[in-house]
Amino acid sequence: MIKIIGFDADDTLWHNESIFEHAHVAYRQLLAHYHPAAEVDRVLYATEMRNLGLYGYGVKGFMLSCVEAAIELTKGTISAQEIREILATGQRMLAHPVELLPGVTEVVPGLARDYRLLLITKGDLHHQEKKITESGLAAHFSAIEIVSEKDGPAYDRVLRRHGVAPHEFAMVGNSLKSDILPVLGLGGAGVHVPYHITWAHERAEVPATEKRFRRIERLAELPSVISSL
Amino acid sequence: MIKIIGFDADDTLWHNESIFEHAHVAYRQLLAHYHPAAEVDRVLYATEMRNLGLYGYGVKGFMLSCVEAAIELTKGTISAQEIREILATGQRMLAHPVELLPGVTEVVPGLARDYRLLLITKGDLHHQEKKITESGLAAHFSAIEIVSEKDGPAYDRVLRRHGVAPHEFAMVGNSLKSDILPVLGLGGAGVHVPYHITWAHERAEVPATEKRFRRIERLAELPSVISSL
Repeated sequence: MIKIIGFDADDTLWHNESIFEHAHVAYRQLLAHYHPAAEVDRVLYATEMRNLGLYGYGVKGFMLSCVEAAIELTKGTISAQEIREILATGQRMLAHPVELLPGVTEVVPGLARDYRLLLITKGDLHHQEKKITESGLAAHFSAIEIVSEKDGPAYDRVLRRHGVAPHEFAMVGNSLKSDILPVLGLGGAGVHVPYHITWAHERAEVPATEKRFRRIERLAELPSVISSL
Repeated sequence: MIKIIGFDADDTLWHNESIFEHAHVAYRQLLAHYHPAAEVDRVLYATEMRNLGLYGYGVKGFMLSCVEAAIELTKGTISAQEIREILATGQRMLAHPVELLPGVTEVVPGLARDYRLLLITKGDLHHQEKKITESGLAAHFSAIEIVSEKDGPAYDRVLRRHGVAPHEFAMVGNSLKSDILPVLGLGGAGVHVPYHITWAHERAEVPATEKRFRRIERLAELPSVISSL
């Protein structure tokens, strides 16, 4: 019996990867006279992965990796004006209004009447807080946890802090790697709501033998799925 | 009677502003053939303040503002190689080992035997967690709170979450603005341990009439000062 539901935020409650995808398109265009898109993507992703330990997740680290990769891709010939464009794109990402995903404004308040809800998101503290405030959803959650990595130990700490037994807990999110697998590993349940774009770093698979795992297409299906877990 | 002590981290438990100061020196040198140091400092600080709402605190936002201000200060003539140097300086800041301040390794474990200790720090979640882990001090704190801004509402939330009454709470830190004034405002006590450099944004004054405020020169004085509060 599920008593507590954890929600991921980016690409589960509101659009996020689509904002990154717009930035990628602009970045590829900026560097199109130097390299084909695939090479731009490859070097940027390699730069992001190399810097992940130093920068962590979020738009600011992405901006810094975009600048660094652009210098590398152009062998140092990129102009200051072009670097300014990269910064401007990043600033627009940070200032981008929160756009809730379909069903969120019905499903979240509805479930909040019957369950304790936790918002569990990773990334940049300042930016995540800004989005949570702007979303208007904060009041439906009994606690908001912004963590630097969503792995087994991080979920274990969050559940202990709130006195939640894993078997009473279901996590809802778009990332199998960050939202589902670590929670299944602790003995909790996982509901996967795919977003139409998944960052390469977040791709994973769930073993077909998992009994406490469900996949839904739309958030509107969540209440009935939760009561089946 | 104080029962719970909150500690700031940057420039209270370990060196931080000195690392920023080294980066400022390198930045002024990089731009020395364009502008005198005072003008470089003025434009960089104005850029940081303009971006604070978007970036929040921390090294990554500082790096981004350094790049932006350098483009502005050179009217777009800065080279990609020079921008790469700014990024390299920032990456060294993020990778810089934690250097504890004098007295920390004696005072913190000592106080942990008689008081509940909270670590309350603001800034970049990922970088702060890295520094806390590296400091070896985490086990002495009953909780670690990384917040995006250290103001009255933020302290109020932290104290409520841990069931702490303000009159039982003393905050120890180097910033009058972030560590002392908001806590005095809630009815708590404040112990100011100045660091030899204070970022312009953190400067403030405490009214001479404050009864629950102390200033000490070295952390070794803390235990006797806490028992006088």
